Order: sequence, then C-alpha cells, then structure tokens
Amino acid sequence: MGSEDLHEVISLFQSMVESEKAGVIPDDPYAQLESAVRAVFESWDTRRAIDYRNFHRIPHDLGTAVNVMAMVYGNADDKSGSGVIFTRDPATGENKLYGEYLMKAQGEEVVAGVATPRPIADLEAEMPEVHRELSGVAEKLESHYRDIQDIEFTIERGRLYILQTRPGKRSAKAAVRFAVDLTREGLLTKGEAVNSVEPEQVYQLLLPRLDDTSKDEARKGGRLVATGLGASSGGATGQVVFTADAAVKAADDGTAVILVRSETSAEDVHGMLAAAGVLTSRGGATSHAAVVARGLGKACVTGTESLEVNQNQGFFRSGDLTIRESDQISIDGGSGEVFLGSVATIQPQVSDEKEMATLLSWADEIRRLEVRANADTKLDATLARELGAHGIGLCRTEHMFFDPRRLEMMQGMILAAHSSAENPEDPAVREAYHSALEELREFQVPDFEGIFRAMDGLPVVIRLLDPPLHEFLPGYEEILAEVVELRTRGDNSDRLADRERLLATVNDMREVNPMLGLRGGRLGLMHPAIYEMQVRAILEAADNVRAQGLTPMPEIMIPLVADGNEMSRLRRNLEETIRWYQSGNDEPVHYKIGAMIETPRAALTAGEIAESAEFFSIGTNDLTQMTFGFSRDDAEGKFLGSYVEDRVLDEDPFKVLDRPGVGLLAKIACEAGKSTRPSLELGICGEHGGDPSSIEFFDTTGLDYVSCSPHRVPVARLAAAQATLRSRGLSSRGNPTV
Amino acid sequence: MGSEDLHEVISLFQSMVESEKAGVIPDDPYAQLESAVRAVFESWDTRRAIDYRNFHRIPHDLGTAVNVMAMVYGNADDKSGSGVIFTRDPATGENKLYGEYLMKAQGEEVVAGVATPRPIADLEAEMPEVHRELSGVAEKLESHYRDIQDIEFTIERGRLYILQTRPGKRSAKAAVRFAVDLTREGLLTKGEAVNSVEPEQVYQLLLPRLDDTSKDEARKGGRLVATGLGASSGGATGQVVFTADAAVKAADDGTAVILVRSETSAEDVHGMLAAAGVLTSRGGATSHAAVVARGLGKACVTGTESLEVNQNQGFFRSGDLTIRESDQISIDGGSGEVFLGSVATIQPQVSDEKEMATLLSWADEIRRLEVRANADTKLDATLARELGAHGIGLCRTEHMFFDPRRLEMMQGMILAAHSSAENPEDPAVREAYHSALEELREFQVPDFEGIFRAMDGLPVVIRLLDPPLHEFLPGYEEILAEVVELRTRGDNSDRLADRERLLATVNDMREVNPMLGLRGGRLGLMHPAIYEMQVRAILEAADNVRAQGLTPMPEIMIPLVADGNEMSRLRRNLEETIRWYQSGNDEPVHYKIGAMIETPRAALTAGEIAESAEFFSIGTNDLTQMTFGFSRDDAEGKFLGSYVEDRVLDEDPFKVLDRPGVGLLAKIACEAGKSTRPSLELGICGEHGGDPSSIEFFDTTGLDYVSCSPHRVPVARLAAAQATLRSRGLSSRGNPTV
Repeated sequence: MGSEDLHEVISLFQSMVESEKAGVIPDDPYAQLESAVRAVFESWDTRRAIDYRNFHRIPHDLGTAVNVMAMVYGNADDKSGSGVIFTRDPATGENKLYGEYLMKAQGEEVVAGVATPRPIADLEAEMPEVHRELSGVAEKLESHYRDIQDIEFTIERGRLYILQTRPGKRSAKAAVRFAVDLTREGLLTKGEAVNSVEPEQVYQLLLPRLDDTSKDEARKGGRLVATGLGASSGGATGQVVFTADAAVKAADDGTAVILVRSETSAEDVHGMLAAAGVLTSRGGATSHAAVVARGLGKACVTGTESLEVNQNQGFFRSGDLTIRESDQISIDGGSGEVFLGSVATIQPQVSDEKEMATLLSWADEIRRLEVRANADTKLDATLARELGAHGIGLCRTEHMFFDPRRLEMMQGMILAAHSSAENPEDPAVREAYHSALEELREFQVPDFEGIFRAMDGLPVVIRLLDPPLHEFLPGYEEILAEVVELRTRGDNSDRLADRERLLATVNDMREVNPMLGLRGGRLGLMHPAIYEMQVRAILEAADNVRAQGLTPMPEIMIPLVADGNEMSRLRRNLEETIRWYQSGNDEPVHYKIGAMIETPRAALTAGEIAESAEFFSIGTNDLTQMTFGFSRDDAEGKFLGSYVEDRVLDEDPFKVLDRPGVGLLAKIACEAGKSTRPSLELGICGEHGGDPSSIEFFDTTGLDYVSCSPHRVPVARLAAAQATLRSRGLSSRGNPTV
Repeated sequence: MGSEDLHEVISLFQSMVESEKAGVIPDDPYAQLESAVRAVFESWDTRRAIDYRNFHRIPHDLGTAVNVMAMVYGNADDKSGSGVIFTRDPATGENKLYGEYLMKAQGEEVVAGVATPRPIADLEAEMPEVHRELSGVAEKLESHYRDIQDIEFTIERGRLYILQTRPGKRSAKAAVRFAVDLTREGLLTKGEAVNSVEPEQVYQLLLPRLDDTSKDEARKGGRLVATGLGASSGGATGQVVFTADAAVKAADDGTAVILVRSETSAEDVHGMLAAAGVLTSRGGATSHAAVVARGLGKACVTGTESLEVNQNQGFFRSGDLTIRESDQISIDGGSGEVFLGSVATIQPQVSDEKEMATLLSWADEIRRLEVRANADTKLDATLARELGAHGIGLCRTEHMFFDPRRLEMMQGMILAAHSSAENPEDPAVREAYHSALEELREFQVPDFEGIFRAMDGLPVVIRLLDPPLHEFLPGYEEILAEVVELRTRGDNSDRLADRERLLATVNDMREVNPMLGLRGGRLGLMHPAIYEMQVRAILEAADNVRAQGLTPMPEIMIPLVADGNEMSRLRRNLEETIRWYQSGNDEPVHYKIGAMIETPRAALTAGEIAESAEFFSIGTNDLTQMTFGFSRDDAEGKFLGSYVEDRVLDEDPFKVLDRPGVGLLAKIACEAGKSTRPSLELGICGEHGGDPSSIEFFDTTGLDYVSCSPHRVPVARLAAAQATLRSRGLSSRGNPTV
C-alpha cells in the first residue's frame, strides 16, 4: 500500500463521514484521538450494549475504560502476522494452546474470515522463537490471573506484541475441568475452584446437547438454516409440530418433537413440557418461551426473526425453504443455531463427568446448607440421590393420582366425598367414600415404599393432598358442551341425566380463584378422611420398608396453613390416626409433622404454627403468588413478561426470590418459628431452591436445607458452597461462558 | 298449700330425680344447698350456655357466681306479690317506671304467662307505700349504677324485698335516649354517654324496622308463623321468592321480595342484594346468609328450623300452612319473627333521630379518626354526607360501567383494547379503541361532577379501574353454550362466526385466578389509555364544578400495586396526561395521587411506594384475601363458615380485622410509608372501616381516617370516639340489648 492508496482511503473515509452528517475528520491527530476515545465511551450507551447488559444483568452505571496504545502492524512484511489464542481449549478445558493466526494480516482479518487462518500449532514450525515466547507469555498470564486467558497478539517484523488479554469464554465442561486442573496444579484453593464455576454450568453439563462433530457436518452441509437467540441451553432434535396439543400427542406416541411457534403463551406450556425443544420466531431472552423453557430445562431458541412461522397453516419459511409439520429439525439452545434434519445428541451421564463429581465433592465439604430434591416418584428419587440430594424436601402426593386408572378412582373418591359432605348420615354414601379411600391407599403404599427405599436413611418430606378436589374432575366446560349438545339433539338418554348430575356437582365444587380456595390444610379439615388415609399409607409403607432392614424417615407436611389453631387441629387429627395405627407397636417408626409456609399469614404467625410443627418448609412458589398478588398461570401470559422486559421488576420473582417482599416474610417465619421451637427444621421447596441468588439468601437467612428439582441438585450444591464462601468474605468471580 | 301438699310435691320431685338417674335428694338442707350451688356452677358448661357465649363472643373462662339468699314468698297472702320493673322504658328510653307485677304469686309466675300480670302503674293505687318505696329504690339503683336497671322484687306480707338488679336490656332507641338524657341530667359525662352505646345500635336505629303496633296486631291475628334466629337487624316485608335470579327480576320490576332458601351460598349474593330481606331454615348466626346480610344491612332471619323449605318446587311449609312464591311475608331480623302477610315498616330518617344526632356530635368532639364513606354515586355521596362522612374514601369507578348502555360501550372499548394490544400498528384498530374511550369519558365526567358537588370542600378518593377487563364481557360458558348449540344445529350463519370470534377473545382474556390476574395498576401499565381517560374525566369534572364556585378535592388512587417502581411508572404516566391537560391553566385544580395497599408486598415495600404516593388507603378486603390465601367468593361458601363455627378462627377475618396477620401488615405499611413521607395521608377503605373492633385497631395504628359504607358512617363515628376514649384509659361498658 503506497501513500496514494492512503490518500484514497482518507478521502473515502471523509466522504463516508460527511454522508453520515457526523462532521469532518480533524487534521490534528490529538483531536482524532480524542474523538476515538469519546466514541468508545459513547458506545456504552448504544442500544446493543444496553440490551447486552440487560440480558446479562450487568449494572448500567459500571462504565467502560479506554486504553491508548502505540500501533503495531501485522501486515508490515513476511515476518509479520496476527492471531488469537486461548491458554486452554475453551470447549474441553484441555491444557494446550488453542487458537489461530494469519501471516501478513491485521487482527481484524483473522476474525473476518477473508483468508483462512492457521492453527496456532503451525506457528511452532514457522516461527519457533515467537511460538516459544508466546507460550511463555500465555503461561505467565494464566498463572498471574489464575484463569483461562483469551489473548490477542501481533508479530511485527518478527517481534511479538501482546495486544490484550482477558478471561477466556469457555464451555461448561471446560470451566469445570479447568477449575479442577488448576486446583490440582496448586494454583487455586478448593474454595477458589468452587467459586470459579457458575452454578448454571454444572446444570448445562448434564443437559442433552448436540454433538459437535455432527453439528460441524450439518454446518458444512448447508443445513444451518437460521440463528436466533440461544434462550435455554441444551440441544434437541425432533419432528416439527406447531401446536401444543400436537406436541403432546406425538410425545405420547414416543416421537421426539420440536414445538415451533411465532411465540408461546401460557396455553402452550403443556406442549412445551412434552416437546424436546422449543423454537420461536419472536421474543427475547425473557419472553414466555425462554423463561418457561429454562424453568423446564428444555432446549429453546427464540427471536429467530429470519423465520416466518405460519402456525395455523402448519409450516415455517427460512428464505426460500419451507419446513412443514413432521419435517426433522435440530436446535442448539446455547448457540441459537437451527439445523435442518437430525443432528446427533449426547445425553451426558453423571458418572462420566468425573471432574464435575470432584468439584461438587469440594463444594459439599464447604457448604453449610443441605440440599434435598423435589421428587414424586421412585425414579425421580433415585436420580436425585445420584445427583447428590440428601433427602427429599417435597414429595407431592397429588402427582400419584394422575395416571388414568388412578384418576378414575380419585374421581370416584371425590364424588363420594362430596355426597358424604351433603348427606353425612347416609350409610351407603359413607361406605362408598371409605371404600374409594381404601383403594387409593392400596395404591399409595407401594409408591411411598419405592421412595423410602431410594432415600434409605435420608429424610423424605411428604406433602399431603394440596390441590382443590375439583381439579381432578373433568372440566365444567367440557361437560357443559356435552350437555348442550345432547339437549340440542333432543337426547333423552341416561347419558344426559348422568352428565347433568356431574355438571351440577362440578358446578358446586368449582371455584372462582382455585388457588385461594378449598385446598391444602383446609381440605384436611373439611374432609379429614383423606389425610387420615394418606398418613396411614405413609406409615404402612415405612413399616414395610423397615421390615426389609432399611431406615425410612418420613416427614409429613401439611400444605397451605394460615393459622396456628388450624395447624394444631390438623396435627391433632393426624396424631389420632397415627396413635390408632401404631398402637401395640413397640418400636413405631419415627415421624415428624410439619407445615408448609406459603401464605403470608403463615409467615406472619409462624410463632404459633411452630407450636404444632417440627419443621417448616417455605413454599416460595405460592408465597410469591400471594405476596405479589400474582397468579402465575395468568401473570406469565398476561403481564409478567412485559414487567421484566420493561424493568418494572428487576427479575421474574418466580425465578429469583424477591428479597424485600417474599424474602422478608421467609425471614420473619424462620425467626418466629425458631423462637418458639429452637429445634425447628427449616427448609425451602419452591423453584427458588435451585436458583443460586436465592440460595445465597436462604443461606444467610439460616435455613437448614434447600430442595429443588433433581436436575438442579448439582447447581444447588455448588451455589450453596459459594454462599458459604461469600459469607466468609470470599466472593465468586464467575467466568465468561461461550 | 298445706303440709300434705308439700309431702306430695316432695315425693313427685324425688321420683323425677330417680327417673333421671341423678341420685336421691339428700335430707340435710346444707347438702341440698351445696347441690344447688354446684348445679349453678355446672350450668356454665351446658350446651346452651356455651352457644350463647359463642354467639356473643363472651370468653369461656370468665366463670359465674352464686348468691345465696333467704327465701321470701310472694304467694304468702293477699298482701304478697312479685314483679319485674325497668327504671326506664326499654323500648323508647322514656323516663318512667316500666314493668309488671302479679299479686299472690312467685316471680316465675309473672314470667310464665299462666296469669296475666298487671302494669306496674296499678301498684300505686293498690299499695301506694310499696310503690313509693319501689320508685325510690329504682331511682337510687339507677343513679348508683348510672345505667338503666332491670329489677326483680317480691312483696311478702306487705314488705318489699329486692331480689336482684342488673343492667336493663334496651332497644337501640332507648340506649341512645338514655345516654343523652343521663348526660343532660348530669349523671354521665359526654364521654361516658358515648361509651354507653354499642356502635351497632346507631346502625340499627337507621334500619327499616317493623312497626311495633302493626307487629302486635299480626301476633294477635295469629300471623306469627315461625321464629328463627334474628341474624341481621331490621324489618322487611315483601313477596316470597326462592331463587336469587327471581329476586333480581322482581326487584327490577320494583317489587319488594324476601328471598327464602334452606340456606344461601355465594351464588345467592346477587339475589340477597336485590331482596329486602332473607329467610333461611338452616344455619346459625355465622352462616353465609347471616354474615352476608349483616354486611349488606339487610334484614335476615336464619335457622328457622320449624320451616320446611322446598326451594326447587317453590314453596315452604310451617306446620299445615303452605306458603308459595308471590305470597306476602314479613320478617323481623332483630327478634327472628316471621309473619304471614304485610306488617307496616318504618324507615327512620336521620333528621328525626335527634338524640342520635346529639350523641354523634359528642362523639365527633372526642374522636381523633376522621370518617369517610365508600360511595360510587352522587346519591350515595349525598347520603354519606348526611350521615356525617367527612369525604369519600373510596369511589369505585368500575361501578359506573354496569348500566346496560354503558356496559355495551365498555365491552366495545375492551374488545378494541384487546385488538389494539394484538395489532398495535393498525390505525383502524387504534382509532376504534380511542373513540370507545372517548365515549366512556363523556359518561364519566357528569358522574364525577355529581360526586364532587355532593362532597364540596371535602376530599374524594377515586379509584381507577380495578377489575380484570374480562369481567365486563359475557361469560365464557354462556358463549360456549351458544356456540355448541349453533354448531349442533348445523348453523352456518354470521352469528356463529361472530360468537366463535367472541369465544376466542374471551378465552384469550379470561383467567385462572382473576383476583390475582391482570387488574388494578397492572391494567394501568398494560393499557395506559384507560387510566389516562379516567384521569382526564376526573380533572374535567373538577374544573366544571369549580367553575360553579365549589371546591372539588380529587385524590386519584391506583389499586393493587405491589412495587415501588410499578407505582412510580404509573404515577409518571398519569402526570404526563395531567400536565398535558392542565397546561396553560394558571390555577389548575389541586390533586393527590396515592396507592391502595392491598397486596402483602405493597405493605412490605410501602417505604418505596410512598416515594410516589401522597396517600395510602389500606384495602383490607383484598389484603385479607391474599394474606390468608382466602378467595372470599370461594371461602365463604366452602369452608369459612365451618372455620368460624368450629372456632378454628375466632372471627371471620372479612368482618373483624385479623390483627396478627393483616393488622401487622397494615402497621408495617403505615410505619414504612410515614418514614419515607411524613405528610403521607393514611386511610383504610375495606369493609373493616365500619367494624368497631377494627376501628379501634386503626386508631392505635395512627391512621388518619376510616372509610365505610354510608350506612355505617354513624357506627364508625361512635366507634372512633370510643377508640379515642379507650386510648385515654376509659373503656366502654356497652349495654345489654333487647
């Protein structure tokens, strides 16, 4: 490039600047420098930077800095070049230099993809001196910062210049491996290792993911059809469906599907649950699809704006390509990539992730909080134990009734309970009610046995029936539609009379605000026989398991109490049944009875409730609903997304515990409960039990344990250790992720 | 009666005692006395005594006492007799001896109705000495106790004995008159007078009541067909209806009706609102019918067990008598009497109740708390001012949209708002939305004008739209039934397509738990144009009224906030509209903007909310719902009745403020709010604003005012004065009521 070329470049630049109406480029180099510095500072407030900070929850008042350096040229001659290296492999964490370089080029050209850069290993043959120096610098920087470094360098006329170094973005796998390796190399303490990994990364490590080689092939084969926002980690491959119902149907047939929508709403959640992954054309990182998918641990790509989704007609377009229902696609919820056809997926096994196991064992040495799991089945309980759960913090007995055969029995019991409340004196009605309960008890016993076996020697908190009974009956509208149809047809059959009766019963039982209706402990007081049946099933199962030489530790939990007197009556009722059941047994199974603290009033009057409770479990899901007055089912579809997007609320309170409101109530409950009963066991079993920021709060509040879904147990173990470290003044620095 | 007669009596008694297996009567008179004393003590725990105490909320651990007195005989000779007197007329409070006596008789015979006793005035002619002595004793006892006395006496051989004296049960009218008279006589201070009347009595004084003469005639004419529990004071006469819908229909035609049911549930409330009175065959003083009727100020008789109500076939039976729909009956909610046919009713006028006005004026001199009213119309506002309200604490704007013509407009606006949220860019949709809002605004302006005029110079708190929008649309089920019917018929008309569209929209908008959904301030943020319209209507009305020389004092209230940031955005939005509207106006109307504190989180974060609020109004209804997790619509019909009846809860928290839970939140809100903004105006506008026990709590919590329904304003004025007196150490003693 001669000076004429430079003149041409300058005049081109000048005309560009003029056409953008941005003034003229000053001749004074210091004035130019000042403009450049100013431009950097101003970049802090660009839309893109703001969005980025919003997404990563980086404070807006942090500000940026500018370094002014002398220019070096990687394109000066044949002995010049530029490159980027990582001190370790950012995908696997392997301890070797990783990166690329390009001779006779500036840094931008390495990244821009005009020429193909060469792997850094080649530099060793080409310029051994420089390679050795670079290796030495890399090692020095890594030991100094005790972190993987991402280094930009330039070689000018054979001399190496380091342009910048920063923490290297890494995959979850690399982060964990690096932390363990560096500790073994003596560069990090165990606490520092624990602090260096984001809790979310151990979660990602266990998600199904797209196989890298298979993904590369797909890319090379031109099957990468779009890239959206990687909204929920993990990979998924499956047939395209456009409605939640189709997703459920396909999943029932054992077909893996990807639910594709322009965006999702509360009505799609059952489909999201059934799908392997979710793809939307609209919505950001806090859209409904993103939030729900992350909660469910499903791969999700949102905001794929190049796609035109026509869900009503059952296809979507990417440019000229039309993809229809049943076509196969694959999505990468980390990178946001969308591939046509199958891409191999990998389901990581806990046992294979040795470094993770090591890191988590260090976390276990450090943390004060115990970690339990929310598990409703033997399978979940087994998985939870494998993932390190120290017991079950929430076993929801209602989930045991959703199997079709049992649901039918449950409905029989409910209709009998209803008649029995209407005609308490009728012996036939009472008989039907009790025999329905007997049938259910016989089903529950083996369920509980399985769970006790999986959690041998560890506590299992079993929550007695919580939802309103009408939730188990067919929906009012469904029956109404049938009745209207039969009537319009002039039908006179028994079917009509039967449906009309059912309609009247459902009408009698249904509620305006079921979340705040006849459920939880209220059910227990109004229909005592149900709780009696459940308590008997629990103790029977415990006895059976103990007869096999195991140690069941049942903790019986009463949901939704709001008052000390209410709790004391419920406890009295249960204990009557227990005394009757255990009478004559010399060594009865030991049990605890406790309360779920999930109404604001339970928190405010926890001192009285603790008189009848040996443990509290803070149910932060419902407590959040009632404290804010947010029905989650309604709020998520109707306003909560906007509230978070527009920063009315800093966080979705169903994901991250709201400290000034819900947190304050939890704190009041713990303090009042402990002052009544110093031995009170304190736990939390809402979704927040798996959220790191919330876990930190629970640690400082003095809880004994958190309970979360089995898949989040490793997250909670790590986060609990970080909370302990933070309380000792050691804060985690996290790490940049790929 | 000779000694033989006595022997016979004794052996009769002995055989009775034996047949009851209660042992034998001892011969030793001291042993007899001891048994008698024991029997009195044991009577404390009889079912009837317990029920009585439960009803009157008398503590069960108070205990009773026994006086042992020498026997005197009113049946000794012709100069002997017995009687009962009141020192004043217990019905009117008139200052004259009132009562009856019977010569040659014991006290029981006066009461038993075997012989007809004579009015006490006759005693003056018959035994002038005794009459004079009795009058003197009466006067002495009344001045000593400074209260109406109910005195039992016996004359034995011409000598007067006083058996007992106790505070005399009196009507509301008598209580008020007596208090005022005694103060004028110098026997009571104003404070003591205020303390001597139950706040509930000034409420009863203003209820429609059955005319005493007409009631007497009905009794004599054999038209008293049953007596139940007087569950809600007042009298009512009207045609019998058996369903809530029939009640509404008749009321629409201007026919007064009495709603008769075996018992009521939440589904009957609209019928109770429309009826003049309610009669049920089942349920006690805390049954749904009783609780709701008291809340509504409707006459109500419950638990009339001698009636057999067949509401499905439209009749009820009392013995042989069958009463059918449209027959006329009358009920007395004080005495529990049910009459066949009409009984004249009296509607007391405030202006006629001079003693009440005097007593309330003394209360006003004493009380610290202001009293405002909840009023949604000019009429209510006028009545409230007449009854002494010092402004409006809650004007619910949604009630202005229920008139059929306006409801149609409102529905148009809602459908437009919904489309507008779906297609924000479509100019036609936006135009339709804004013109619908304009129409509504034009209706609201004169509504507000009427209220400002009625409350000239006094503050008027206007709450912006609160309920979820779908509550204004036809119900989902109603449309569904029509759609199913049209489809079954194979209809292909536009009507079907239209209904299907509406069904889809309502489906989109309806909510699982509407109480915790898109309502209140959330509406204000998601559909800002609605609040902008309302604020403009308020200011326009204020300007118009001021142009007439009056002083409107609008206070604009945002419902259901849960967060300081949410409140600050809502305030900013409103102020933008206000600035725009008032720009160029040199002397704009002064206004305040405040928050309704009704979510637990609003109470817990009140310090931040107060940054954007010049006043708080504690909405104790919703706050109670969310704090307990009780949906009132569901709880009242499904479990709350049992909870109160079985004393799980001491009180219905929707009637009497729950101090440990809801009260604590209210206290936290007030303290945090005041510490942010010392000038913060604090009020309460839930139903508790009219409940004396709750008012006492609000007084000690330091609120500025309570707001209640217009009819309860006198109650609140009196209760507020009693609260002030109590805080000065002067507690009220109440008085026994007839």
